[in-house]
Amino acid sequence: MYNFKNDYSEGAHPKVLDKLIETNLIQQLGYGEDEYALQARDLLRKKLVKQDAIIHFLSGGTQTNLLVISFLLRVHEAVISAKTGHISANETGAIEATGHKVITIDTDNGKLSPNDITHILQEYALAPHVVKPRIVYISNSTEIGTVYTLAELEALYLSCQKNDLLLYMDGARLGHALTADNSDLTLAAIARLTDVFYIGGTKNGALLGEAIVFNKPELAVDFEYAIKQKGAMLAKGRILSIQFLVLFTGDLYFELARRANALAMQIARAVKDQGYSFLTESTTNQIFPILPKSIIHTLSLRYQFYVWKEIDQDHAAIRLITSWATNPDQVDAFISDLQRA
Amino acid sequence: MYNFKNDYSEGAHPKVLDKLIETNLIQQLGYGEDEYALQARDLLRKKLVKQDAIIHFLSGGTQTNLLVISFLLRVHEAVISAKTGHISANETGAIEATGHKVITIDTDNGKLSPNDITHILQEYALAPHVVKPRIVYISNSTEIGTVYTLAELEALYLSCQKNDLLLYMDGARLGHALTADNSDLTLAAIARLTDVFYIGGTKNGALLGEAIVFNKPELAVDFEYAIKQKGAMLAKGRILSIQFLVLFTGDLYFELARRANALAMQIARAVKDQGYSFLTESTTNQIFPILPKSIIHTLSLRYQFYVWKEIDQDHAAIRLITSWATNPDQVDAFISDLQRA
Amino acid sequence: MYNFKNDYSEGAHPKVLDKLIETNLIQQLGYGEDEYALQARDLLRKKLVKQDAIIHFLSGGTQTNLLVISFLLRVHEAVISAKTGHISANETGAIEATGHKVITIDTDNGKLSPNDITHILQEYALAPHVVKPRIVYISNSTEIGTVYTLAELEALYLSCQKNDLLLYMDGARLGHALTADNSDLTLAAIARLTDVFYIGGTKNGALLGEAIVFNKPELAVDFEYAIKQKGAMLAKGRILSIQFLVLFTGDLYFELARRANALAMQIARAVKDQGYSFLTESTTNQIFPILPKSIIHTLSLRYQFYVWKEIDQDHAAIRLITSWATNPDQVDAFISDLQRA
Amino acid sequence: MYNFKNDYSEGAHPKVLDKLIETNLIQQLGYGEDEYALQARDLLRKKLVKQDAIIHFLSGGTQTNLLVISFLLRVHEAVISAKTGHISANETGAIEATGHKVITIDTDNGKLSPNDITHILQEYALAPHVVKPRIVYISNSTEIGTVYTLAELEALYLSCQKNDLLLYMDGARLGHALTADNSDLTLAAIARLTDVFYIGGTKNGALLGEAIVFNKPELAVDFEYAIKQKGAMLAKGRILSIQFLVLFTGDLYFELARRANALAMQIARAVKDQGYSFLTESTTNQIFPILPKSIIHTLSLRYQFYVWKEIDQDHAAIRLITSWATNPDQVDAFISDLQRA
Repeated sequence: MYNFKNDYSEGAHPKVLDKLIETNLIQQLGYGEDEYALQARDLLRKKLVKQDAIIHFLSGGTQTNLLVISFLLRVHEAVISAKTGHISANETGAIEATGHKVITIDTDNGKLSPNDITHILQEYALAPHVVKPRIVYISNSTEIGTVYTLAELEALYLSCQKNDLLLYMDGARLGHALTADNSDLTLAAIARLTDVFYIGGTKNGALLGEAIVFNKPELAVDFEYAIKQKGAMLAKGRILSIQFLVLFTGDLYFELARRANALAMQIARAVKDQGYSFLTESTTNQIFPILPKSIIHTLSLRYQFYVWKEIDQDHAAIRLITSWATNPDQVDAFISDLQRA
Repeated sequence: MYNFKNDYSEGAHPKVLDKLIETNLIQQLGYGEDEYALQARDLLRKKLVKQDAIIHFLSGGTQTNLLVISFLLRVHEAVISAKTGHISANETGAIEATGHKVITIDTDNGKLSPNDITHILQEYALAPHVVKPRIVYISNSTEIGTVYTLAELEALYLSCQKNDLLLYMDGARLGHALTADNSDLTLAAIARLTDVFYIGGTKNGALLGEAIVFNKPELAVDFEYAIKQKGAMLAKGRILSIQFLVLFTGDLYFELARRANALAMQIARAVKDQGYSFLTESTTNQIFPILPKSIIHTLSLRYQFYVWKEIDQDHAAIRLITSWATNPDQVDAFISDLQRA
Repeated sequence: MYNFKNDYSEGAHPKVLDKLIETNLIQQLGYGEDEYALQARDLLRKKLVKQDAIIHFLSGGTQTNLLVISFLLRVHEAVISAKTGHISANETGAIEATGHKVITIDTDNGKLSPNDITHILQEYALAPHVVKPRIVYISNSTEIGTVYTLAELEALYLSCQKNDLLLYMDGARLGHALTADNSDLTLAAIARLTDVFYIGGTKNGALLGEAIVFNKPELAVDFEYAIKQKGAMLAKGRILSIQFLVLFTGDLYFELARRANALAMQIARAVKDQGYSFLTESTTNQIFPILPKSIIHTLSLRYQFYVWKEIDQDHAAIRLITSWATNPDQVDAFISDLQRA
Repeated sequence: MYNFKNDYSEGAHPKVLDKLIETNLIQQLGYGEDEYALQARDLLRKKLVKQDAIIHFLSGGTQTNLLVISFLLRVHEAVISAKTGHISANETGAIEATGHKVITIDTDNGKLSPNDITHILQEYALAPHVVKPRIVYISNSTEIGTVYTLAELEALYLSCQKNDLLLYMDGARLGHALTADNSDLTLAAIARLTDVFYIGGTKNGALLGEAIVFNKPELAVDFEYAIKQKGAMLAKGRILSIQFLVLFTGDLYFELARRANALAMQIARAVKDQGYSFLTESTTNQIFPILPKSIIHTLSLRYQFYVWKEIDQDHAAIRLITSWATNPDQVDAFISDLQRA
């Protein structure tokens, strides 16, 4: 059985492991103060064209989301998210567990627009009987594979600034977003058009690791306390920083994402060629083809994937994910099997 | 400068890295459901002589402490700790951040006794105007290097059971505790004499990782939700389980701890031979010699360590820590420098 | 300007004030242990036909909701509510502030049905990546004036019990619900068909005060700690218990509610007679007529009320509330003004 | 049995009840926006000589403490308190339940000094492994009856300002503090020398009610959200504001406190005359005489009070509290009984 269920079925890119081995016995300070962290921060700041960005390395996406959001909100403030947003749909109430409401809104494509913001601000006008919206949470790529364009992000950030809202981007799959064919965003643009965002490592070549970027340094003051308090400060912080150092040396991070996208798009074309449609208009490494249930059954005998949503009596949408580690032969095999079925 | 500041200055034991490389491209389920987790759990259960123990792998000590304690307590309940306990002194209010008071008590040696429990229960008798003590938190080895004996743990657990209190042991340095010359405890004894405990990996050969053991399976029901909610569920959980699999294959875990203890004791003997005393009666890998400040200054030019506590105008206690990775030549050099100074 | 904005514009029923004066200088124990509390609990238990019910008196509805829900939930558990439910729409994230998600569902009439429960349990099936539903929160009367019938409550409670869910009823306006013409519920039926509920005093004759009833005594163990911890334990608890003692001596509580309903229904009939419709099918003391905006404007010159919802360019729904203290002459005047307008 | 256990055994001062009756049927806005609230705020601001103070009325002391402290702290910040402080000793972990550590320090007299602050800041220097002290909590009068002098408060506030700490005073018994013979503080001085404080009503003539005063208006922005969120916003807020309006019209509030103090001091003198000493040097309405246990036993047959602390085999300290409502004849009787015993 080959696994298309997610993009974390394998370990790390070999270059990452090599560097861990190479540096293994060099003594370092703990708790994120190792020299690799300094190097990785410098490297990222250059790529972000943002010399004053404050950067911290954490272990995972839910951890990063709950840390950033709970650190920036006061007790009566809330975060806005698309209903499909990871903090709303997939994190076991992690944000609420820190004391804050997640205000959700239905969207067609997993993305938030200035209209959505306006709508929510109207709905939450009856102060003090409702929470006060303060952060807008978006994912790029989204949980359904779509990406923000430069124009969309500019418009959204403008709306946030007008309404005294912070814009926070979840970049668990940021590499895949930025290398999508229809993306015109760059790291530097994101550093300019969000207040805080994170660059996902776990799903793009690292064993574990996400890099939080505070584009406004004043927002990051005292954040180390919060990292420690939430149990997110690794004694051997080097394991996170070394991986980002490797992934962002040269273009490795984006090469890996591009490769993952390409394999997904290869499958997507085959699906289309067979006359099938999709649940969402993904251009990244997770796609949601709608297939006859009989074909889904056949494919499920050789491949692992999620059956995502019942469409009608005879059809369902499935989710297929590719990664930097996906075997191209298995992609070819899947396509053949699909064509045969 | 050689670093005696802590036991996490280096990476992982080479065997750990070897196994990560060896298994790197084998596809696995995420979120702790990989096959290595199954194997590591089985292996640990055998060593614990506790077939029904529920075991989870987490990233770090603070994370483990806050997860276990917040999961087991109801809103009005509290945890008891020695004032030197890690949850009281070193975790940035992590427990309080989950809503619970840490009740502290001064101790001579970092350890809790049945008398301490009795004393606290008397102090917290005026229900409902005070919190209700429910968990007793202990560390073994303690934050000041001491260890519990079998008799002490038996007495303490009996006291807990009489008073409807859960006993939870922080084993960040459990290997060092169990291999101390004056320890008569075993993993199996701890599994019998605590309700929950954890086995520390980070400070004894792993890159990161702690194994929580619920000795009462009923206490662990639904714990996966909490792991996810607190951002502690790694997508690539394999990185934790593989390390425990390596460390507990054969006697590696205890060999590493024994070696760390031996090096610390070697320094301790030299300190004693020079006529100096100690702040605490440590028998494990962290020792607290009291030295003249002039000697501390001299040593600080070649070695990194914490000056722990001012003793008088001319003396201070320092903390020296050794680990599985400590270089014996540096230990010898330190001793020579001490003798010369 | 006469005020139809809410049912707490006046103070307390005169009999309540009389009793406060009469008992004012009699020394009592504090913190809810006064003799009036004992008497009021006994009286209520008789009316509930539930001798083992555990009853506590609190100050307000939001306080009661957050206390009950946060006390009964474990960290990973959540509460289900209609989207119009008070805990979802009007309490400034009070439940989330205690760490728990409020799962909402759209409803036609503000009420939850077994189908809603089934739907949510399906949506929250992917453990442990989602919260675990544990409490079902309903209001009676609802926030839009509707009431549960005996058959509806029986069906809902059965569904809860099948699915290991607790049923909690917010009775801020329980008097108005039980005295509605279309209600066949009684206090005793509610005590039998919910796990916990509260009887609202503030909106029906008291200065302040709500009585929580735990129908399952085991759920209430240690609840006093939580009352104190959340700042809800009044030193002079007598002020709450005395009021419930007065309101439930004889039939006063229900007389007051019946009177409030009757005045609202008098207006409702006049609205209907004028050919207008309603936003919701209320049979209690808050009604939501849909009127031409010009008429709304005219009425707003003499009466205070909320414009609740824009219907179309020319129409809006308003909310009118009556209470035990509403002046019947003002109701007549309002009806005349409506007819004229 | 006459009750000297506390100062909330009776209801409200008759003038308070009169005003409640007089205003009972006048319609008012809810949620703290009634006209009495406006009047009471104006009146208090004049007495505080602080025209820009922001004032809110709440129900009780624990509620006020947890609201102010949780509203002003960020996640990683903590509050400092004397070990005897109410938030540390008597509030069931209310502050911790909002996520914040209470840092305690032993004191001789229940009061904090600049030295205490210095000491704690040294102890909490190892950022980010410890919480960040941010609020200093003091009570006046303290939980053991002592009071701050002007010089003490000036020194403490200066220390707070130097160290970027907020000073918050719990004034549950502020009237008793300011009318103590050895007090040279005034309301205006407190408004100048604290950042936030509250004026206690419950223990000095009100049925319930505390008035929070934010001396720095910028600290109070959005506080209404927090009041609502914690369940502390009464629908009929008038019940709180009316009481403060009565108590601060003329000098009633301080007359009542002065009377309570005088009765306590009358007992204190009798205790002294009999040759007995005190646990604390109280000059307010709660005193802690140390008496032979045989005498305590005799007194306990006619009077209710707390046996506070075992002193030795034959002696214990008891707590006696007087209030605005204490019967002078009972004070005389108690003294006679003491002299006889």
